[in-house]
Amino acid sequence: MALKALDYDSLNENVKKCQYAVRGELYLRASELQKEGKKIIFTNVGNPHALGQKPLTFPRQVVALCQAPFLLDDPNVGMLFPADAIARAKHYLSLTSGGLGAYSDSRGLPGVRKEVAEFIERRDGYPSDPELIFLTDGASKGVMQILNCVIRGDGDGILVPVPQYPLYSATISLLGGSLVPYYLDESENWGLDVNNLRQSVAQARSQGISVRAMVIINPGNPTGQCLSEANLREILRFCYNEKLVLLGDEVYQQNIYQDERPFISSKKVLMDMGSPFSKEVQLVSFHTVSKGYWGECGQRGGYFEMTNIPPRVVEEIYKVASIALSPNVSAQIFMGLMVSPPKPGDISYDQFIRESKGILESLRRRAKIMTDGFNSCKNVVCNFTEGAMYSFPQIRLPPGAIQAAKQAGKVPDVFYCLKLLEATGISTVPGSGFGQKEGVFHLRTTILPAEEEMPEIMDSFKKFNDKFMTQYDNNFGYSRM
Amino acid sequence: MALKALDYDSLNENVKKCQYAVRGELYLRASELQKEGKKIIFTNVGNPHALGQKPLTFPRQVVALCQAPFLLDDPNVGMLFPADAIARAKHYLSLTSGGLGAYSDSRGLPGVRKEVAEFIERRDGYPSDPELIFLTDGASKGVMQILNCVIRGDGDGILVPVPQYPLYSATISLLGGSLVPYYLDESENWGLDVNNLRQSVAQARSQGISVRAMVIINPGNPTGQCLSEANLREILRFCYNEKLVLLGDEVYQQNIYQDERPFISSKKVLMDMGSPFSKEVQLVSFHTVSKGYWGECGQRGGYFEMTNIPPRVVEEIYKVASIALSPNVSAQIFMGLMVSPPKPGDISYDQFIRESKGILESLRRRAKIMTDGFNSCKNVVCNFTEGAMYSFPQIRLPPGAIQAAKQAGKVPDVFYCLKLLEATGISTVPGSGFGQKEGVFHLRTTILPAEEEMPEIMDSFKKFNDKFMTQYDNNFGYSRM
Repeated sequence: MALKALDYDSLNENVKKCQYAVRGELYLRASELQKEGKKIIFTNVGNPHALGQKPLTFPRQVVALCQAPFLLDDPNVGMLFPADAIARAKHYLSLTSGGLGAYSDSRGLPGVRKEVAEFIERRDGYPSDPELIFLTDGASKGVMQILNCVIRGDGDGILVPVPQYPLYSATISLLGGSLVPYYLDESENWGLDVNNLRQSVAQARSQGISVRAMVIINPGNPTGQCLSEANLREILRFCYNEKLVLLGDEVYQQNIYQDERPFISSKKVLMDMGSPFSKEVQLVSFHTVSKGYWGECGQRGGYFEMTNIPPRVVEEIYKVASIALSPNVSAQIFMGLMVSPPKPGDISYDQFIRESKGILESLRRRAKIMTDGFNSCKNVVCNFTEGAMYSFPQIRLPPGAIQAAKQAGKVPDVFYCLKLLEATGISTVPGSGFGQKEGVFHLRTTILPAEEEMPEIMDSFKKFNDKFMTQYDNNFGYSRM
Repeated sequence: MALKALDYDSLNENVKKCQYAVRGELYLRASELQKEGKKIIFTNVGNPHALGQKPLTFPRQVVALCQAPFLLDDPNVGMLFPADAIARAKHYLSLTSGGLGAYSDSRGLPGVRKEVAEFIERRDGYPSDPELIFLTDGASKGVMQILNCVIRGDGDGILVPVPQYPLYSATISLLGGSLVPYYLDESENWGLDVNNLRQSVAQARSQGISVRAMVIINPGNPTGQCLSEANLREILRFCYNEKLVLLGDEVYQQNIYQDERPFISSKKVLMDMGSPFSKEVQLVSFHTVSKGYWGECGQRGGYFEMTNIPPRVVEEIYKVASIALSPNVSAQIFMGLMVSPPKPGDISYDQFIRESKGILESLRRRAKIMTDGFNSCKNVVCNFTEGAMYSFPQIRLPPGAIQAAKQAGKVPDVFYCLKLLEATGISTVPGSGFGQKEGVFHLRTTILPAEEEMPEIMDSFKKFNDKFMTQYDNNFGYSRM
């Protein structure tokens, strides 16, 4: 009998091939257990509000007023909203052509793109052009748009760090391109060695792949490292030499938990390098309202900025963006607010600073509690989370555990994470979902559970882990780094 | 010198190939003129709020409260919000796991999907399964997801009506598939003749194309016709025989301006047909919060419902949806509100009915004013807008005008629409952006300008058109239907 177009065997193979572990087997099992009444701690995805983080008050007040503009004419509005939120709502509504219910330009509201450009100028000390900034429904959508322009077929390769956030591997599969991995060095705190890059490119070329773009995630996901200025300079020089577009995933730029290596943007480093680099290297940088101390994931707001991309190509990207009409307008306003928060002297300033500092300082403490917790466990070693929202401990599985996983038909770290989930309710993502060296195993967890629950969670983890290790540890040694 | 990945000549050819006229040359020129200070009437896109339509009060109250949940604890909240809006906000917040700032399940909030299923059951009189309903960032995103599953390469063909909404042609180009056109019959009020479908499929097959899916837009965009039940039955039987997935674009189902042919869903007709059809024909139906009397385009909310799609394929679609994490949550709540508006007896019921009836009745009057206006113009003939939001008059261009267009290097209807724009500020989309028979010309305009401005706009159109026609009418006859 002939197949129908939406029968499994007749689907687009690229759809079937792509994998997205953050919402994969572990997440699905966790959702089942939750339905059955088990208490689940979802640390599989960086979703702060789902774990109790409160939204920042000021931006929510502004967007609520934009949703209900009729309140602005209500004499009682001042009883529920401060004057600066009212003024800001009027400002943002004046940037729209019909409020939150009207499609904006497909690149986003011009007025918000101008605010983003001003933010980038303040951050980097170099000019930024609003015409080269596109707002998106979250950073992921932007990454997908750019990769769609770059990838023409399986002969086109994209350099992606391993371990990586699986948005990249999944999107490259979906678009039918080739992922060219470069390995981060766990023993050097997930550092990036340019010699590895060269090897990866040489190997890809020997297989007939034309490497066209390189992805960096800074601060790292799932690995939590912050790239140094010197390292970024090497990367940009490499992209110049190899004619690669650099995709700079900088969505965690507000999430920094140490003082030695503050965030520095790829754009700033590139501009600092001067000619010919600053005029030649093609760079697309991504940002979001989902991370930082905002954590407004569900709003789906982001932007990308293009550097050294020819106008004709910018037009093509604009054209493709216009097929889906426009990014959602309320998230565009969140983006405007994120890049121009309350200023000293504003009524809401003190509260905004108190709330945002509270979140960031707590995340810094949680990063430490988690790293220390993991490092106190048997057969677990973990680099410190310098930035981003994740801990990525290495789990040194004894041969007995690897054997048991095989018998259960599971990848070893999937086996471990499933056992962890069943025993403790902690929902993580196995390292195999991000890529890792052969025979080395990890898991990713967010550092987002509420600070007061953190000691209990780490305790519960340690109890499970140490029992697991004792059970399977048969003195035959364990997997090595 | 070697190309960089984001140089024009090295872009993905499918990106370059796709065209989206709704935001094409005419829109770009109109935006320029607006910047120069000219008053532009944007009728290029169905964007009601941009043309002054006010949002419905109740849903905006509910979503504003969801954005600012701290107001729910404020003793003064009742001074600005009615009790039923407060209760609804609490209800929707209880369906989220962390409010509007948390990612939802990638298919959308289970509670909202349940409300959508209940709406479909009430509408059609048949069961609907929330597990087969996915919420999306607008209907367009859903269409793109499904076509991405269906299209494997340029040997895969999608039957698309001509004229069509260019979302379809653009997405098929972007995904590297083949558009297989079937012509709607203008002289039969844009009716769909199944014999034409057969011819289109036969012709495609003779070119080695495997036809896999068929798109219907009901009510029609840009053509405004409503499909009859008998016609839908023929289409579904055709899809059964040819093993085609039917994509039912039903985003205008609330926009009906006559009583002879009320909207009837593809799902209901399919279920009415009984076995084997109701168990075999694969159907995906799309809906949105952007149209109807809501017009909440900027919120980006939609859903699709799948019928007869195997569970394993539903899982694949879920997996791909999860790469971009989740649709924006506030639009999911708009969707919930759209499918479960205030009920008789609710505090907000009367106001909601007054507002929504006001919008729909005015649209009905505007549809008539516009059709009559076009039909009073020289060399213009126009079918009545039975539904949707558009008028699609045929413009019978005299040979002199076609000649002048050629000299200007323009497609004749682009030439006409540009002249119209420069003379009157009315921004339309040329018929060539939607597809039309060789040598026949149209334009699409929305029926959305404010009712009180409509007579002046039609007057301004008529003055321009009749002058244009007189100028170019050289008595050699004009282009024929």
